[in-house]
Amino acid sequence: MVHDVRSRLSELRREFHRCPEPGWREFRTTARIVEELERIGVDEIAVGREALSTDQRMAVPDSSELEPWLERAREAGVREDLLERTADGHTGVVGVLEQGSGPTIGLRVDMDGISMTESDLAEHRPAAEGFRSEHEGYMHACGHDAHIAMALGTIEAIAGSGDRLDGSRSSSEPRSDGGFEGTLKVFFQPAEEISGGGKAMAEGGYLEDVDYLLALHVGLDHPTGEIVAGVEKPLAMAHLTATFEGASAHAGKAPNEGGNAMQAAATAIQNAYAIPRHSDGQTRVNVGRIEGGTASNVIAEEITIDAEVRGETTGLMEYMRTELERVLYAAAEMHDCDVTPRVISESPRADSHPALRELIGSVAREVEGVDRVIPSTEFGVSEDVTYLMNRVQDGGGLASYMLVGTDHPTNHHTPTFDIDERSLEIGVGVLSETIAELSRRPV
Amino acid sequence: MVHDVRSRLSELRREFHRCPEPGWREFRTTARIVEELERIGVDEIAVGREALSTDQRMAVPDSSELEPWLERAREAGVREDLLERTADGHTGVVGVLEQGSGPTIGLRVDMDGISMTESDLAEHRPAAEGFRSEHEGYMHACGHDAHIAMALGTIEAIAGSGDRLDGSRSSSEPRSDGGFEGTLKVFFQPAEEISGGGKAMAEGGYLEDVDYLLALHVGLDHPTGEIVAGVEKPLAMAHLTATFEGASAHAGKAPNEGGNAMQAAATAIQNAYAIPRHSDGQTRVNVGRIEGGTASNVIAEEITIDAEVRGETTGLMEYMRTELERVLYAAAEMHDCDVTPRVISESPRADSHPALRELIGSVAREVEGVDRVIPSTEFGVSEDVTYLMNRVQDGGGLASYMLVGTDHPTNHHTPTFDIDERSLEIGVGVLSETIAELSRRPV
Amino acid sequence: MVHDVRSRLSELRREFHRCPEPGWREFRTTARIVEELERIGVDEIAVGREALSTDQRMAVPDSSELEPWLERAREAGVREDLLERTADGHTGVVGVLEQGSGPTIGLRVDMDGISMTESDLAEHRPAAEGFRSEHEGYMHACGHDAHIAMALGTIEAIAGSGDRLDGSRSSSEPRSDGGFEGTLKVFFQPAEEISGGGKAMAEGGYLEDVDYLLALHVGLDHPTGEIVAGVEKPLAMAHLTATFEGASAHAGKAPNEGGNAMQAAATAIQNAYAIPRHSDGQTRVNVGRIEGGTASNVIAEEITIDAEVRGETTGLMEYMRTELERVLYAAAEMHDCDVTPRVISESPRADSHPALRELIGSVAREVEGVDRVIPSTEFGVSEDVTYLMNRVQDGGGLASYMLVGTDHPTNHHTPTFDIDERSLEIGVGVLSETIAELSRRPV
Amino acid sequence: MVHDVRSRLSELRREFHRCPEPGWREFRTTARIVEELERIGVDEIAVGREALSTDQRMAVPDSSELEPWLERAREAGVREDLLERTADGHTGVVGVLEQGSGPTIGLRVDMDGISMTESDLAEHRPAAEGFRSEHEGYMHACGHDAHIAMALGTIEAIAGSGDRLDGSRSSSEPRSDGGFEGTLKVFFQPAEEISGGGKAMAEGGYLEDVDYLLALHVGLDHPTGEIVAGVEKPLAMAHLTATFEGASAHAGKAPNEGGNAMQAAATAIQNAYAIPRHSDGQTRVNVGRIEGGTASNVIAEEITIDAEVRGETTGLMEYMRTELERVLYAAAEMHDCDVTPRVISESPRADSHPALRELIGSVAREVEGVDRVIPSTEFGVSEDVTYLMNRVQDGGGLASYMLVGTDHPTNHHTPTFDIDERSLEIGVGVLSETIAELSRRPV
Repeated sequence: MVHDVRSRLSELRREFHRCPEPGWREFRTTARIVEELERIGVDEIAVGREALSTDQRMAVPDSSELEPWLERAREAGVREDLLERTADGHTGVVGVLEQGSGPTIGLRVDMDGISMTESDLAEHRPAAEGFRSEHEGYMHACGHDAHIAMALGTIEAIAGSGDRLDGSRSSSEPRSDGGFEGTLKVFFQPAEEISGGGKAMAEGGYLEDVDYLLALHVGLDHPTGEIVAGVEKPLAMAHLTATFEGASAHAGKAPNEGGNAMQAAATAIQNAYAIPRHSDGQTRVNVGRIEGGTASNVIAEEITIDAEVRGETTGLMEYMRTELERVLYAAAEMHDCDVTPRVISESPRADSHPALRELIGSVAREVEGVDRVIPSTEFGVSEDVTYLMNRVQDGGGLASYMLVGTDHPTNHHTPTFDIDERSLEIGVGVLSETIAELSRRPV
Repeated sequence: MVHDVRSRLSELRREFHRCPEPGWREFRTTARIVEELERIGVDEIAVGREALSTDQRMAVPDSSELEPWLERAREAGVREDLLERTADGHTGVVGVLEQGSGPTIGLRVDMDGISMTESDLAEHRPAAEGFRSEHEGYMHACGHDAHIAMALGTIEAIAGSGDRLDGSRSSSEPRSDGGFEGTLKVFFQPAEEISGGGKAMAEGGYLEDVDYLLALHVGLDHPTGEIVAGVEKPLAMAHLTATFEGASAHAGKAPNEGGNAMQAAATAIQNAYAIPRHSDGQTRVNVGRIEGGTASNVIAEEITIDAEVRGETTGLMEYMRTELERVLYAAAEMHDCDVTPRVISESPRADSHPALRELIGSVAREVEGVDRVIPSTEFGVSEDVTYLMNRVQDGGGLASYMLVGTDHPTNHHTPTFDIDERSLEIGVGVLSETIAELSRRPV
Repeated sequence: MVHDVRSRLSELRREFHRCPEPGWREFRTTARIVEELERIGVDEIAVGREALSTDQRMAVPDSSELEPWLERAREAGVREDLLERTADGHTGVVGVLEQGSGPTIGLRVDMDGISMTESDLAEHRPAAEGFRSEHEGYMHACGHDAHIAMALGTIEAIAGSGDRLDGSRSSSEPRSDGGFEGTLKVFFQPAEEISGGGKAMAEGGYLEDVDYLLALHVGLDHPTGEIVAGVEKPLAMAHLTATFEGASAHAGKAPNEGGNAMQAAATAIQNAYAIPRHSDGQTRVNVGRIEGGTASNVIAEEITIDAEVRGETTGLMEYMRTELERVLYAAAEMHDCDVTPRVISESPRADSHPALRELIGSVAREVEGVDRVIPSTEFGVSEDVTYLMNRVQDGGGLASYMLVGTDHPTNHHTPTFDIDERSLEIGVGVLSETIAELSRRPV
Repeated sequence: MVHDVRSRLSELRREFHRCPEPGWREFRTTARIVEELERIGVDEIAVGREALSTDQRMAVPDSSELEPWLERAREAGVREDLLERTADGHTGVVGVLEQGSGPTIGLRVDMDGISMTESDLAEHRPAAEGFRSEHEGYMHACGHDAHIAMALGTIEAIAGSGDRLDGSRSSSEPRSDGGFEGTLKVFFQPAEEISGGGKAMAEGGYLEDVDYLLALHVGLDHPTGEIVAGVEKPLAMAHLTATFEGASAHAGKAPNEGGNAMQAAATAIQNAYAIPRHSDGQTRVNVGRIEGGTASNVIAEEITIDAEVRGETTGLMEYMRTELERVLYAAAEMHDCDVTPRVISESPRADSHPALRELIGSVAREVEGVDRVIPSTEFGVSEDVTYLMNRVQDGGGLASYMLVGTDHPTNHHTPTFDIDERSLEIGVGVLSETIAELSRRPV
C-alpha cells in the first residue's frame, strides 16, 4: 500500500508538473484541484473569487496577459463554471473538511509555475520520463507541483481517518487512534512567485477561525529525509516599479530642453543603493531591471526601473521602501521629471511559532522516512505566506512554515530542477500526523 | 517643358519615396539609381563595393538584418549582378560623367530612409496621392528621396548640355551658353542616418581628384525659394555603445556576490554628463538609450547603453570621446564589471568654403524660383558628409554643403514629413548652374 | 617732465601697493584717494555711502571681519569723517570734475587687494625696492594699485587741460588743443575681486548721466606697449555658497538616524557638473571648495560648499544658477537635509561698444609708447565692471573695457606678480587723450 | 573601611580626571600609574616600548603633535627615565603581580582622554568640586579615568590577599578565603579612542601566557549597581583616510584642464555608501569628514576624506574595506586624480566567552552594591580591546569584556559626562572577586 500511495502522489505531482501556469493564470491547475477535492468529497470548496479578497490581490497582470491562459484552459476542457469563478485573475481554491469538533487547522500551499524553459536533456527526469512541461517557456521549477500533491494527499489521508459530519462515512466503522477531530482548511494559494496572492487569500475570510496554520516548502538544500520544523526570519519584501517621465529633445541641438529621464534614473539608482544601513538589522535594495530611451541622439523621455527592498523585519522593509520613494521623487525633481513609484507586491515578515515548531518536530521524528529534524532555520528570502501566518498569529493562533527536505539535482529556479518523489509521502506523513496530533493535544 | 521636368522629378522622387530602405540595406534604391544612370548614359558607374572602402564602413548591421532586405529586393526584381555587388552591406553608387576637359566636380547625396511608420492620414499627401511607403515601418522622413531625384535631375541636365567624350552627342550640335566642360562625379552615399557610409565613400577612391564638392539637404526650416549657400559648424559626432557585464546573484540572499552592472551603468551615466566643459568651445554628451537586467530580485548581469558625444571641432569631439571612455572603464572597475565601449559611427567637423559659398550664392540668385539667398548658417547637428568635405578640402579642393529650402508641413523625422515638390526643380537649377559656372570660372 | 610724471605715477602706485586692503575694507585706500582728489581740486567728491547703493552691495563681510581693518586705518591716521562715511562696508569714491559744457565721461577703476602673502624674494622688485605689502597676508597681486594711480593721473591730466567751472583756473590762460570740455566722473570701485561692488556703484546714482564709460585692466598677458581697445564676451558669473544641514548620529550604532549632509553634498556635486550643456553657448559650473563633518564615525551634520556658475550671456548664467539651485534643493531633499543656497555675488555680461573701441584704438595709436593696438579680444573670465557698462549702455551711452599692456614677470594672483611701471604713463596717455577726443568728436 | 577605599578610589580617579591626555600622548598618565604600581609593590613594571610592539601601533600622531605633550609632562615633573621609555608615542604600562602558582589572569583598561572642552557649569560635579580638566580642550569624557582607578584598586586588593613570591608578606599571616594564587597582569592600554593601541599591546609579549582576560567599560547606559557579564558582537572596524590629488585650473578659463579632485571625492562618496549589503551580516560605511579646494573659481586640486567601515565580523569589515578601496581608486581614475587610501586604525571582532561570562555573573551577584546582573548584551560599536581578546582566545584562553554600570548624567563623549563614583568600588569588587575565584576554580 505504501507503494500505492507513493505512486498516486507521484502521478498527481507529474500531472501538475506537465501544466505549469504563472501567477493569477492557474486556471487549469485550479480546476484540476477542484476535481480532486470533489473526488475526495470535502465539505466545502471555495473557488477563485470566493476564496480571495479581490481588492487585496497584487501584481495582477493585464487582461491581455490573462486571456490567452484562460483560453488555453478552456481548450483543455476546463468547465465553464470554474472559468467564470476564476476569471480576471481570481485563481486559487480553499477546500474545507469538517470532521467532528476540535480545532480548526489550516494548511497552505502555493500552486504557480515560473517563466522558464524546462530542460529537455536526457538526464532531466521529467524529460526522460515524459512529464516535461507542455507549456513551453513555463516550468514548475520551484516544486509547487509537489506542494499541491502533498496537500491533496494530506486531505485524503485526514478524510479517511474519521467520521464525516455529513455521514459519508458510516459511524459504525472504528475510529483509528490517529484520527482527526476538527476542521481542516486547505488553502491552494495562487501567485506566490510574484508575491501577489498571499494577502488576498489572508483576507479572503477562510482564515479567520484558523487556530493552527501549517505551510511548507520542499527542498531549499535540505535532502530527502530532513525536516525543518519551522523557519524564522524570512525577509519582508516590497517590489516596486517606477517610470521617470521627462521630455525628449535633440541631444545636439537642444541639450538643455526637456527633462532627462536618463539622468533622473541614474541619480535614483546611485542613491537607492546608498540608502543608509539600519541599526535594527539587515536590509536590502536592488534595482534589477531598467529600460528606456529611444536613440543615442535623443534626450530620454521615459525610463522604467524595477526595484525591490527587503528588511529583516516588516518595519525595516518599510523603512527601505519609504527611503527608496524619497530617493525616486528627489531624483525626478532634480532632473525636472515626474515619477510615480508603484508597489507591485509586498510581503511582511512572520516567524514560525516555537511551540508549534516543537510539536511538529516531535511528530516528525516518528514519521517513517524522516532521518533528521532541524528545529528551526533562518530563511533569508521572502514568501508571501507571511500574510497568512501573521493573520493567524495576530488572531491568537499559531503558525509554522516547515521545510520538507528533498534531494534536488540543481537549484530551484533552474531548468533542470527536480525533486525526489520519495519526499512526497514523507511530507504527507508529517503533515497528516501533525494535524491529527494537534486535534488530540492542542498546544 | 518646365512642367515636364517638374513632373519627371516628382515622379522619380515619389518612386523612391515608396521604397525607403534603411542604412546599408538600400539594395533596391541602388539598383533603381543604376538604371537611371544607365538610361542617361553616364561614362562610368561604380556600384557598391566598387564605390566604397569596405574597411571604413561603420554601423553595418548583422547579416540577419541585411538578408531580409536583400531578399525583398530580389523579389522586387533587382538584377542579380547588382545584388552581388551590393551584398553584405555594400550599397551606394558613384556615377561619372566625362565631358571635355575642365575641373572635376563632385555632387554628393544620401539615399537611406529611417525606421518610422509613415502616416496614413488623408492630409498627408503621400497617403492621399498613393505614394506612401510600401515598406511598412520605414519611411523617407528626412527628404533623401528628394536628394536622389535632384541628383539624377542634375546629371541629366549636365549630360544634355555638352559634347560627350564617347561621342554620344553629335559635335555638330551647338554648345549652349550654360554648358559644362569637365568631369562630374555624383556620389549616392548609403547609411547617412546612422553616420555609417560617409567615411567609406570618402575613402572609396572616386573622391581623390575632385576639385569642388557640392552637397545638399532640403528643408531644415527653410521654405521653398530659399537657398543657404553653405553651412558652417556642424558638430563633430561619435556614437558609442557599451555593455556593462557583471555577474548576477540573488538580491535577497547574496547581494554582495557578483558584479552589479546596474550600479556600473548608473555611475557611468552620472559621470558622463559631468565630463568638464571645454574652454575651446561647445561640447555635447548624451546617453539616450538603456536596457538590461532581468527582474527586481536579481543583481543585473548586463546593461547596455547607447551614447553619443559631439564637439564644435573634431578635437573637441575626440576630447569628449576619450573622457567618456575613461568614465565607462572606471565605472565598470568600480563595480567589478567589464565593459567594452564600441564606436558605432562618427563624423568630423567640416565647414563650407567661403569662396565656394559665394559662388553658389551668386549663381543661386539668378535661378528661377529662388527668392532669397542666405550666405551661411550654423548647422548645430551632425552629418557624415563632413568626411567627404574634409577629404576634398584636405587635398586642396573646395566643398560646400548647401540647403535647398522646401516647405515642409511637419518636422523632419516625423510621420507626416513631406516636401514641396516645386523645390526639386529649384535644387536641380542651382546645382546644375553652379556646376556649369565652376567649369567656366573656377574659384 | 616725462620723467617727472612717470616717477609721480610710480610713487603713487607704490604707495597703494604697500597698503593692500581686501574688498569692502579699503578704508585707508579710500582715504588716500580722497586726499589726492582734494589736492587736485575736483568739484565733487562722493565718499562711501554717498557713492553706493547700500542695498545693492554684495559679498559684504561680517562686522567682525570689517572692524579690524577700520581700526588699522584709524591707527594709520585716517580722518574720522572719512571712517564714518565708509563704515560698515561702504568703501569707494567718486570724483567729479566739471569743465565746461560737453559730454559726461565716466572712468572706472577698482581698488581692492587679495588675500595672498607677497613674495619677499630679492628678485621681486617690491621686496627689493622696499614697497612690499605692509599688510602681511594681503597683496595687490592683480594690478589694482596701478589702476588707482592711472585714474588719479588721468584726472590730474584732464584737470590741467581746461577752464574750471569754479574759476580755479584763470580764463585768460590759453586752452590747449587737447583740452577737455565736459564732465569727468572717476569711479573708484571697491570689492571687485569678490564681485561685490560693481552693482552697488552702478546703482549709486553717479552713473546716470554718463555718456561714455571707460574702464581698464593692466596686463593679462599683454606686454608693455600693447593696447586692447575693448574686450568682448566676458562670462557672466554668479558665486554661490550652500550649507547642507542634516542631523548627526553615530555611524556604527545608528547609521539610519539623522540626515547625512555628506551624501547630500556628494549627490549635489555630481549632479551640478551634470547640468546639461546649453545650445545657446558656453556655460560653466564648478564646486571649488568643501568642508564639513567632524569625524569618521559620525554622520556628517553640516557640509558647506562654494560654487560658481558662468555663462556666455547673462541668460546662460541664470540658466545655470537656476539649475544649480534645483540640484542643491533636490540633493538635500534626497538625504533629508536642509539647504539654503546663497548668492554671494554675481556679474552680468557686457561687451565693449564697437564705435567706442574704434575711437580708443585710433587715439591709442598716436600715444607715445604704444606699439600695437588690438581692436578687440574675447575675455573668458568675469568682471563686475559689467554692471556699470550695462547701466550706461542700457541708458543709450557707450562703454568699453580696455586692456593696457604691461610686462608682468608672473601671472596675476601669484606672490611675485608685478607690473612694468612704464605702462602707467601709457595708460594715462591713452585715457586722457581718449577723454579729450570724446569731448571734441563724440561718437 | 569601605568608606576609606571608596574615597581612595575617588581621589585617584579625580586625579586622572584632571589631567586627560589624548592617544599616544599619555605621558603623565603613564608616569602616575607607574608611581602607584611602585607604591603597591608589584613584581614587574613594563613601561612604554617594553609593553608594546612598536610596529603594530596605529594612528600615531606626528612628532609635532607628540612633543608639546611630552614637554608638558616634563614640566609637570615626570621623571626623565619614564619620558625616555614612553617617547615617540610609546605610552602605556603593564604591571605584573606574581602570587603563588595558579593561572595567569590579565586585566585590561584604557587610559586616554578625548579632544573636548569640559563643561564649567556649576551642575557639572568636576567643575563644582574642583577636578575639572586642567588640560583645556581635552577631557576624560568616556570614563577611562574611572577605568584606571578601578584597575589600580583591583591590583591593590589582590596584592593584599596573598603571599608574595618576593616574601614581602609574611607567610605567618593567615590566608584569607578570598585569596588569589597565580599571576595577575594589568594592561594599561594607550590610544583606545583612536583604535591605535590595542594591536600593539596585544603583540607586546605580555599577553602570551594569559589564561583569562578581563576587560571593562563603565556606563554605556547601565546604571550604578548593574553589571553586564560580557558583551558580544562588537563591530569590527577600520578607519581610513584618503586624499584625492588632481590638478587645479581656472574654472572659467580652463574647466577641462587638470583633474577635478572634487568630482573624484563626490563620486567616491556616492559609491561608498552604495557598496552592496552582505548576506553574512551587518555592515557599515561612513564618510564623516571632508575638506579641500581653495575657492569657487578654481578646480579643486586636493580633497581629503575621513571614512570608516565596520562589520559584524572581521571578515565583513574586511569585505567593506576592500570594496571601499576599490571605490576610491576607481573614482580617482575616473577623474584623472591620484588617491592613496591609508588605514589609520582598525579593530577586529571578538566575543566574550560564555563560560567566563557565566563565572563573572555568578561572582557579581554576590558583590555588595550589585543589584542586577545581565548575562550578555550586544555591543554595536567598536573597541580595540578585541585585539587582546582574540590574542588570548586564539591561544586557548578565555576573555570577557564586562560593563560596570554607573549613573551618568549625560552621554559619553559630551562636555558634562560624569560617573557615579560609587561604581568604582563595585567594579573593584567584581574584578577582584572574579580574579580570586578564577584562581580557585578555573573554568
